[in-house]
Amino acid sequence: MQADKVWRIGVAGLGTVGAGLVKFIQERPDFAPGRARVEIVGVAARSRSRPRPVDISAYPWFDDPVALAKSPEVDVFVELVGGSDGTAKVAVETALAAGKAVVTANKALLAEHGLQLARAAEASGAPLLFEAAVMGGTPAVKMLREGLVGDDVDSVAGILNGTCNFILSEMERSGRSFAEVLAEAQRLGYAEADPTMDVGGFDAAHKVTLLAALAFGGAPNFAAAEVEGIDQVELIDLRLAHELGYRIKLIASATREEGGASVRVNPALVPLDHPLAQAGGSLNALFIEGRRIGRIFLQGPGAGAGPTAAAVAADIADVISGASRPVFQDRAERLSPLPPVDPHHRAGRAFIRLLVRDRPGVIAAVSEALAKAGVSIDSFLQRPVEDTGLVPIVLTTQPASEDAVRDAVDHIEALDAVVERPRMIRIART
Amino acid sequence: MQADKVWRIGVAGLGTVGAGLVKFIQERPDFAPGRARVEIVGVAARSRSRPRPVDISAYPWFDDPVALAKSPEVDVFVELVGGSDGTAKVAVETALAAGKAVVTANKALLAEHGLQLARAAEASGAPLLFEAAVMGGTPAVKMLREGLVGDDVDSVAGILNGTCNFILSEMERSGRSFAEVLAEAQRLGYAEADPTMDVGGFDAAHKVTLLAALAFGGAPNFAAAEVEGIDQVELIDLRLAHELGYRIKLIASATREEGGASVRVNPALVPLDHPLAQAGGSLNALFIEGRRIGRIFLQGPGAGAGPTAAAVAADIADVISGASRPVFQDRAERLSPLPPVDPHHRAGRAFIRLLVRDRPGVIAAVSEALAKAGVSIDSFLQRPVEDTGLVPIVLTTQPASEDAVRDAVDHIEALDAVVERPRMIRIART
Repeated sequence: MQADKVWRIGVAGLGTVGAGLVKFIQERPDFAPGRARVEIVGVAARSRSRPRPVDISAYPWFDDPVALAKSPEVDVFVELVGGSDGTAKVAVETALAAGKAVVTANKALLAEHGLQLARAAEASGAPLLFEAAVMGGTPAVKMLREGLVGDDVDSVAGILNGTCNFILSEMERSGRSFAEVLAEAQRLGYAEADPTMDVGGFDAAHKVTLLAALAFGGAPNFAAAEVEGIDQVELIDLRLAHELGYRIKLIASATREEGGASVRVNPALVPLDHPLAQAGGSLNALFIEGRRIGRIFLQGPGAGAGPTAAAVAADIADVISGASRPVFQDRAERLSPLPPVDPHHRAGRAFIRLLVRDRPGVIAAVSEALAKAGVSIDSFLQRPVEDTGLVPIVLTTQPASEDAVRDAVDHIEALDAVVERPRMIRIART
Repeated sequence: MQADKVWRIGVAGLGTVGAGLVKFIQERPDFAPGRARVEIVGVAARSRSRPRPVDISAYPWFDDPVALAKSPEVDVFVELVGGSDGTAKVAVETALAAGKAVVTANKALLAEHGLQLARAAEASGAPLLFEAAVMGGTPAVKMLREGLVGDDVDSVAGILNGTCNFILSEMERSGRSFAEVLAEAQRLGYAEADPTMDVGGFDAAHKVTLLAALAFGGAPNFAAAEVEGIDQVELIDLRLAHELGYRIKLIASATREEGGASVRVNPALVPLDHPLAQAGGSLNALFIEGRRIGRIFLQGPGAGAGPTAAAVAADIADVISGASRPVFQDRAERLSPLPPVDPHHRAGRAFIRLLVRDRPGVIAAVSEALAKAGVSIDSFLQRPVEDTGLVPIVLTTQPASEDAVRDAVDHIEALDAVVERPRMIRIART
């Protein structure tokens, strides 16, 4: 920390987070450790005139983020443009090549190009920090990158996408369908016009890819993540799961395995009294399991101007502290992408919902189909339904290989009395 | 981070944590960022020959921790001797004066002499780190010192003493008295032979004093903390609180107030469905409330060889990263101890338990005594009791000033039918 140095910040991207950061620095210019001096020396965004909750007229304007990244006036380049490629990537590469510290909230960029960018950062000796990329203002990245290096982390699992968590909570609370709640979330600005990144599970997959790299000491390997979103979750699944003592959450998880890592995002049933089931609305929550430390639980807001800008500011403070660490846990030259593990050996419990014609012998046939696949039933629930002649049945399985469960679902689907492909949702290991 | 430097560690104190640290470094000498080289170059403890779960024969032995702190062979001095004064303090002062980085788990030392030691550290440019002092392996210190500098933290509150949490959980579970459970905890090694530091609330007060300093930007001011332990908590309090929907926990809290901070440790009632009520056994848990970020919740193991040694190792990694930050949030020259706020204006709800003679008019007299003090009743519970002619009554109040509640307790005690001083326990603000 050089006592009298002024740290000159360039902010590219003035959406919610960028405007929040500018506002924070205006209110608290002394936020950095030891009150190091921080000044905004340039801003860039798509439109200069768009109304913003903060006055930016005092700052030099750049039409092009890349020009800002290149400016000799800038010590720390803050990238809040977004997107895994295009301008954001070029601007970050430009800043790193010029030896400037980069702070970003861009999970897609880091999850998809993390190794390449870590190489660029370490080649020029520039820090590349991304606290705001995961869990907004809740410092999960710092916890894994720095706080837990005195352990070997075996797994992380949690809720990393606030939009999906809001939609699932709201479906359950209001009894409305996925489509209705999504439309409302879009009206309220909680979901994007194109919601695919969120509801398709990709945003959570980017985030857990980064956490896996930090936790297990590899490079991010987004391509190897298995991703399933919440767009197929129906209200009836939430209701039946609840009757069985569970809540459905979009769970992002990463587990260290022999020879690699299993990184995945999928809807999963969590027991109602579990902390992840109790994290409602747009909260994020994360369990970290270490060999020596045991279990740590962390919960907080996953998005929003204040929290996310706070994470960016914390990274700026880290740059000012002069800390020199590899971007991930080891030097980029020694990192390789965490290889995925063969999913065929994985085991777990499952929730299976089917719709059958109400006729004698159906339950026996379903049980037989499961037995044929070597899957045992843990609980079974049949609800009386009026008129339609169709009965929803839901069951949970005992632990079985995922292949066996898929076989069982195939066998059940082939039954005469079963009118649609059964819906399978995993039960989270807790 | 100098690539080829070997970081030479001296470890003073080889109890649970010290032995755990030595074992960890033996198993994972590459734990530091970028695999910087770490070597233990000296150990000190009271007895060289005492049996330990780790082989220390390869390390140079020092009878005197101060001599180890002074050794020119040592880059990082790890102080695990303990105690707020005496050898630990002299050794830390010696190391800092020599410009050596110090890593310590000593909450008493930092809470009572933090400002003086911060001055010494900053004068010589040596880092002084203490992650292991609070919440064991759960990085609460790093979170407040670094992760949340992009916000203004208004309060922290949680469970910071695992021994007390174990005793209260075990009293409730087993229906045994405080004295019985304490004796068992001592037999099992969960509680010290002299349990005052833990059950008297002082250990939690040291810890929350440090968190308050980090959260609010002052120097630790242990002398200003209000401390009440769990030694007066009776089984009947746990039971009656449970009937009213609460669990009793030892809550350590710090709140930023106009002109200072309120820092206190006391038993308090927490609603059964609250995360702090659900943190059982020896778990630690902490809520952090920031103006912009909102609420963050952090939970994990608060003690034990593995977790606490992991926190020490994380601090060693921080030293290696070369980060330069003030010991607390601002340079020591600008810090002053956080002044306590006048407790007379504080308000809150309370649980009051009394034992009365079973005679007509008692309840009216109690209600009147409360009314005279300006305190309103929220709920009231009277349990039938056999034989003795004495009836326990428990009530909760609406929010009232703590002075008014104390007055009410005085008035109640003065009643003829009341046979002992009523027991008052605060209800936590949640």
